[in-house]
Amino acid sequence: MEYPVLDTQISPEGRLDVLLKAEVNKLLDTSHGGLYTIFRHCTLAVLNSGNALDDGKELLARYPSFSISIIHRERGIKLDIKNAPASAFVDGVMIKGIQEHVFAVLRDIIFLNSEIEGNAQFDITTSQGITDAVFHILRNANQLHPLVNPNLVVCWGGHAISGNEYDYTKHVGYQLGLRGLNICTGCGPGAMKGPMKGATIGHAKQRIANGRYLGVTEPGIIAAEAPNAIVNELVILPDIEKRLEAFVRLGHAIVIFPGGAGTTEEILYILGILLHPDNVDTPFPLIFTGPASAAGYFKLIDQFIGATLGAQAQNRYQIIIDNPVLVAQQVLAGIGEVRAYRKATSDAYYFNWALKIPNEFQHPFIPNHLNMRQLQLHKNQDTHLLAANLRRAFSGIVAGNVKEAGIRAIEEFGHFELTGDSDLMESIDALLTSFVQQQRMKLPGKLYVPCYRIIK
Amino acid sequence: MEYPVLDTQISPEGRLDVLLKAEVNKLLDTSHGGLYTIFRHCTLAVLNSGNALDDGKELLARYPSFSISIIHRERGIKLDIKNAPASAFVDGVMIKGIQEHVFAVLRDIIFLNSEIEGNAQFDITTSQGITDAVFHILRNANQLHPLVNPNLVVCWGGHAISGNEYDYTKHVGYQLGLRGLNICTGCGPGAMKGPMKGATIGHAKQRIANGRYLGVTEPGIIAAEAPNAIVNELVILPDIEKRLEAFVRLGHAIVIFPGGAGTTEEILYILGILLHPDNVDTPFPLIFTGPASAAGYFKLIDQFIGATLGAQAQNRYQIIIDNPVLVAQQVLAGIGEVRAYRKATSDAYYFNWALKIPNEFQHPFIPNHLNMRQLQLHKNQDTHLLAANLRRAFSGIVAGNVKEAGIRAIEEFGHFELTGDSDLMESIDALLTSFVQQQRMKLPGKLYVPCYRIIK
Amino acid sequence: MEYPVLDTQISPEGRLDVLLKAEVNKLLDTSHGGLYTIFRHCTLAVLNSGNALDDGKELLARYPSFSISIIHRERGIKLDIKNAPASAFVDGVMIKGIQEHVFAVLRDIIFLNSEIEGNAQFDITTSQGITDAVFHILRNANQLHPLVNPNLVVCWGGHAISGNEYDYTKHVGYQLGLRGLNICTGCGPGAMKGPMKGATIGHAKQRIANGRYLGVTEPGIIAAEAPNAIVNELVILPDIEKRLEAFVRLGHAIVIFPGGAGTTEEILYILGILLHPDNVDTPFPLIFTGPASAAGYFKLIDQFIGATLGAQAQNRYQIIIDNPVLVAQQVLAGIGEVRAYRKATSDAYYFNWALKIPNEFQHPFIPNHLNMRQLQLHKNQDTHLLAANLRRAFSGIVAGNVKEAGIRAIEEFGHFELTGDSDLMESIDALLTSFVQQQRMKLPGKLYVPCYRIIK
Amino acid sequence: MEYPVLDTQISPEGRLDVLLKAEVNKLLDTSHGGLYTIFRHCTLAVLNSGNALDDGKELLARYPSFSISIIHRERGIKLDIKNAPASAFVDGVMIKGIQEHVFAVLRDIIFLNSEIEGNAQFDITTSQGITDAVFHILRNANQLHPLVNPNLVVCWGGHAISGNEYDYTKHVGYQLGLRGLNICTGCGPGAMKGPMKGATIGHAKQRIANGRYLGVTEPGIIAAEAPNAIVNELVILPDIEKRLEAFVRLGHAIVIFPGGAGTTEEILYILGILLHPDNVDTPFPLIFTGPASAAGYFKLIDQFIGATLGAQAQNRYQIIIDNPVLVAQQVLAGIGEVRAYRKATSDAYYFNWALKIPNEFQHPFIPNHLNMRQLQLHKNQDTHLLAANLRRAFSGIVAGNVKEAGIRAIEEFGHFELTGDSDLMESIDALLTSFVQQQRMKLPGKLYVPCYRIIK
Repeated sequence: MEYPVLDTQISPEGRLDVLLKAEVNKLLDTSHGGLYTIFRHCTLAVLNSGNALDDGKELLARYPSFSISIIHRERGIKLDIKNAPASAFVDGVMIKGIQEHVFAVLRDIIFLNSEIEGNAQFDITTSQGITDAVFHILRNANQLHPLVNPNLVVCWGGHAISGNEYDYTKHVGYQLGLRGLNICTGCGPGAMKGPMKGATIGHAKQRIANGRYLGVTEPGIIAAEAPNAIVNELVILPDIEKRLEAFVRLGHAIVIFPGGAGTTEEILYILGILLHPDNVDTPFPLIFTGPASAAGYFKLIDQFIGATLGAQAQNRYQIIIDNPVLVAQQVLAGIGEVRAYRKATSDAYYFNWALKIPNEFQHPFIPNHLNMRQLQLHKNQDTHLLAANLRRAFSGIVAGNVKEAGIRAIEEFGHFELTGDSDLMESIDALLTSFVQQQRMKLPGKLYVPCYRIIK
Repeated sequence: MEYPVLDTQISPEGRLDVLLKAEVNKLLDTSHGGLYTIFRHCTLAVLNSGNALDDGKELLARYPSFSISIIHRERGIKLDIKNAPASAFVDGVMIKGIQEHVFAVLRDIIFLNSEIEGNAQFDITTSQGITDAVFHILRNANQLHPLVNPNLVVCWGGHAISGNEYDYTKHVGYQLGLRGLNICTGCGPGAMKGPMKGATIGHAKQRIANGRYLGVTEPGIIAAEAPNAIVNELVILPDIEKRLEAFVRLGHAIVIFPGGAGTTEEILYILGILLHPDNVDTPFPLIFTGPASAAGYFKLIDQFIGATLGAQAQNRYQIIIDNPVLVAQQVLAGIGEVRAYRKATSDAYYFNWALKIPNEFQHPFIPNHLNMRQLQLHKNQDTHLLAANLRRAFSGIVAGNVKEAGIRAIEEFGHFELTGDSDLMESIDALLTSFVQQQRMKLPGKLYVPCYRIIK
Repeated sequence: MEYPVLDTQISPEGRLDVLLKAEVNKLLDTSHGGLYTIFRHCTLAVLNSGNALDDGKELLARYPSFSISIIHRERGIKLDIKNAPASAFVDGVMIKGIQEHVFAVLRDIIFLNSEIEGNAQFDITTSQGITDAVFHILRNANQLHPLVNPNLVVCWGGHAISGNEYDYTKHVGYQLGLRGLNICTGCGPGAMKGPMKGATIGHAKQRIANGRYLGVTEPGIIAAEAPNAIVNELVILPDIEKRLEAFVRLGHAIVIFPGGAGTTEEILYILGILLHPDNVDTPFPLIFTGPASAAGYFKLIDQFIGATLGAQAQNRYQIIIDNPVLVAQQVLAGIGEVRAYRKATSDAYYFNWALKIPNEFQHPFIPNHLNMRQLQLHKNQDTHLLAANLRRAFSGIVAGNVKEAGIRAIEEFGHFELTGDSDLMESIDALLTSFVQQQRMKLPGKLYVPCYRIIK
Repeated sequence: MEYPVLDTQISPEGRLDVLLKAEVNKLLDTSHGGLYTIFRHCTLAVLNSGNALDDGKELLARYPSFSISIIHRERGIKLDIKNAPASAFVDGVMIKGIQEHVFAVLRDIIFLNSEIEGNAQFDITTSQGITDAVFHILRNANQLHPLVNPNLVVCWGGHAISGNEYDYTKHVGYQLGLRGLNICTGCGPGAMKGPMKGATIGHAKQRIANGRYLGVTEPGIIAAEAPNAIVNELVILPDIEKRLEAFVRLGHAIVIFPGGAGTTEEILYILGILLHPDNVDTPFPLIFTGPASAAGYFKLIDQFIGATLGAQAQNRYQIIIDNPVLVAQQVLAGIGEVRAYRKATSDAYYFNWALKIPNEFQHPFIPNHLNMRQLQLHKNQDTHLLAANLRRAFSGIVAGNVKEAGIRAIEEFGHFELTGDSDLMESIDALLTSFVQQQRMKLPGKLYVPCYRIIK
């Protein structure tokens, strides 16, 4: 099948995008080295926004002749784009929101390369160094807003959800928007898009012209979860661990909709952190919600958490079924507590410095066959460490499902294998099986072939 | 049934609302005279936004204790509102967009009373005087924007349409919004809301922060077609004739979705004007459109127009079925012609001075039993005059269906009676019967009892 | 002598200037009737900004071929200006601030004619009707700002002052600007320009980008006191009485610098009002100030007030010599009281509704020979009425000095004659004589020939 | 003598000032190491704005107890300032413009330390590395504006000039401002302040609300030439060489007013660069101007240039005496050529990449006794290298006159000694002697004691 393509040239607008020639040259050197590959890959993902495709490998295959180069002009730079997906255009002109995303990619890829990776200032072997790097990336992307009251709600949930669940995420977003709250998601389709669309209407009714629809992504996932065009602020972190850290340091509350392996990874991440002894008193509103049809789903999730992390973990969230107004009111109340707590402790509203994120949640986990096989999946460890290892397990499954490197690894070496305490294995197996049955692993319309095997 | 109510005080925001004490006193005199009655009525309609109700009389009955008064404060005025519909509030605070509508009502009611009605400058017995009055009202409402290219699309269509048709209006609005076009409607639900919602998303993707969603209404209809909260500019004309004139003088193109008697009135209005000899060369993009399921509906409309106004009228519009992208492209192309024409004739972009609107379309038609009975419904007259009389007939039916005064008249004196050439009567009867069958006369869920009788 | 002239076309910018064709036609009818004469006269004055000339008659004589017409364009109107003073241009382009003034003139002349003069709403035979008219004119000129704390300082003083005094007015303006206060003057040179220039620098240092430099003028005086280009808001009242009313209803404090007959008129106006029994408790900061060299001048003024209006009048102002910081601090403190008073009485910050302005200060005084001769200049009347009559006497002298109609009347019929109680006559004579000696009656460089005669 | 001081706390406003805790800690460590010393020194200079003092050493002595610390608040940081010069305050509140300068200092000191000095990306032993560092500093300070036409005029000239010359710089600034041009200076008093004040009025008349008054300074000089409060953008480069490079890469034209040793350094710098073979075809408007009284001064300068750098150098500038309008027109015309040239060569408007700045003008020259003595002041070298060495000689004299380190060195070791070709020595001696006679070396009121000795 041939996919329609278009050419264009675009200029940055509305914000300073002044590039040092050296930066640009490094990015677009003639050898088209590693940096260009990442840049091209992310840009293509951004241009594919709105298309139903969650397979980074396939995306690259669809547009083999897609390319980008930079032209210097006296008023600033231009990007020269060839053979881009036609869906990014209206009557031949690239949608403005997508243009902005392209420049956000450019900004972040250059910044990661020139300011973070080579900079002795960030010792990314230490917890503090990683947090500092996350801080710098977010600051450079202009995502740290002082003088603003807490108002950012992180919405997590699956990219592959039913129409009924999708409508529900819109209703929740609408109620959040009516209350002046902003939305931050992983910026793909499904539960990452619905809340933003709903909030757009809520903000319009409240005449909030500067509503934030923040997408937080990473090069590995962006192709599978391309930013929807509602996203009006986009930031790319280098890996899933820093991306997750960005979510919890920026967000003032988290709402979790139904999802699959990725959503479970996120749940395990935030619960693992909140279970750390340093964080027991830190307020962090956490709400699981879905339409009536999702009641069973959340019951299963709740049981899984009870069985693996215990009642203490269960106490950190509330489950609200089929009540968008109540969700929004609870979020607002929870954020009120967050605000009071930050004020009392003089912690910034725009960056959650005080939250302790243990090392185990920060260091990148490479989901290859060896690492997956060796995961410590047993209860003979601190609960937050068990959460960290479970998080890694689900992270690996996400990679095998939708990330390009993961897909290639599975193609070459077969299933990832997970092993550990048998009751843990039972719980994991039950959960994953239900995800497969409910078609939560991949976008509908394809048969899901599991990338993992549970060794009981 | 008890309807929940809330009290509040609101201040104008974001624009100058400085009122002369004399103006306010006149409005809110202790006798609560005619002006207060209209103001209270319109304000209540505005506050009822979002509720499914198209019956002005019932609305007033639901909120008998609703009241408004004005408080003078050193920083400006405040409105003190008691027993307002609770749906206008979020957590006890009135939605900002609805607040703005309340102040738009205040602005227009005062302006109509103090600047138009008593002012010798406007001789409303003449065509020019009426047009001048419309101009002044729109200018006072800040709806005349010089220095802006033509971009305002009037969307007409029914308030009572199917979910399928409603979704279609959203898709068309989305495509219009993606192309930077703004939306103007009669500001109620259904086809008056969908295009605005769609355009909101389109504008968001194109980063258009100042999209216009203009509602044009009149005291008589506002209760039946309360402005949806997306409407971010609202203007109230004194009667349906001036309201229709406002549409065609402001708008640069008209898109017509399926509807009932009101939509037919609008179609007859614009076609009647375009049939006037002075307007034959004036470009005016006019598109009838709907989803595949509406193909039959537009066939019927087209036949009715052919049978009554003839082929010349049919040449002024195109019918596009199930193709939102094509609709938007055709609108854009048509507006291009409008722009070129205005430039060539040095006519303003913001007000269509050159369009000839014959007297018969300007003078208010009072839809009482006598006037309806005496309508000249025969072909022995200029086509544009026949259009004018047909327009009046449908206008009367709208009044009998949803306007408070009309409903009361029908209750008291029975059906309106229409008579004239028998083939005309056949056409009218066929059209109205199909509207009733397709539930286009009133919001679903109620049995429609016709307010008219065709005397063949 | 030939004065250099230039042609240009200008469009309104930055604000809505949508004109009804009827309005424009009336203004620029082929007969070039009365309205055009006033418009041409005021526009020429505005274009003459910055030139040292205080003689309206001479101004018209200098530019006999100056003309304006209006061109309709699809994006709005343009003014076509021929033979305008070259000083209004930089490299052939009209200075933007002067362009704005031209459009302010257009706005106000049309409004006065179409909305005020013909409108039955304003009964200008009554005090309330006159105040309502002033309110409407200011509102139409967008000079009534709700939601803003009191901050407008009216600065009065002569157009013909020494360089030393001029520098002092700049220092005072600077200190006012540093404190966030805005400036309102009669908008000519001298004491009407210096405070604005000083405040511009003060505002720049405080990063106040929206500082207001409001000029309030009238067709009769505008040629003699052309708005300086710092004026960024300009409003034209129909006559000196409404202009003075605009000053005291808008301003929150008044600072009076040295001046001549016009300044004395202003002093008598405000003191006369403050002496009215209804206003005795109304706070109204009033400060007379000048450099050390002006100490004698203010001593004379103080004596004149003592001798005519008495100690009660003297209690309403304070005299501060050579201390700009103290002036600014006292103004700020006084405005604090004004704010508290308005808050306590729920009176608007943006319009001093509560201040009683007696009839005698509102009705236009026509300064012809008969009216001047018949002025009641004796102490056998209420003090505020004596102030009103003294005000008229000085108003007439201003007219004879600089207003076109006054100059012509003097040329034709000789001196105005003033008569009354002999001690009053002595005081007036002494004051005027000192003004002549100090060259405060006209711009320096011309011999001043008195237009009046005191009959003792 | 006791200097009045005040305490305050200030928060950044209007722009993002989000600081990493590590950055702040480094700056304000308990040991109060080197970085704090520089920060305190620069901040004190900024707070001393407006006071006549050009002696960095004395400034520090006046405010021994001045200190700054940082407070973390939930909405961002605050600076806690103790014992600051009272002149920075109005009624106890720090002037907003000065607050902004304090935060500009904070921004640049931190950036220099954390991003430039430690960053392997910038190899400051190479010409390209130095230029890249300058680029980064300016970009971080938000001084590189794409999409804007060339409009930045660098004004150089003395801080110690006569009142007559000062007024002239205001007139020139006024004419530049009227033409929409922005001003960039070294940000002290005298010729660095006058053009900004004049342009402020010019911009006000043209309704240019976002006029730029850019101050470019360095830690070494800031105390002697504290930014005047009109400066609304401030950037601190690490040393005089990078500061001079910033001027010529940012500016689109240079206007040079009378001055002393510092101005001569600047003249030698720009001429030396323009004499480089690579730059012969590069348009760069360069105008020497002053009032009639300065005609002799510029004759002397012109002779000095002729005698040292020759006729080729003299061809790169024009001298305009007593004609601000002509200066502004010539600047505008010259910038037109710059624009055309950059467009033709696709060079950025916002940064003059193409200008070749030889190594000799980039590497910091340490003005100690040895380096001054060893300067190669002879004609047996390329002209641009002679210019580089002459530039260093005058740079050293400036240091000895007003920079803290220089003053201390002179106190300790006596005069700097300059030696070389005898005719060069004669020229230098003559020029410097005239500067001393004309009181151009230091602010008036102090006897100037030369810091140098010419060895003939």
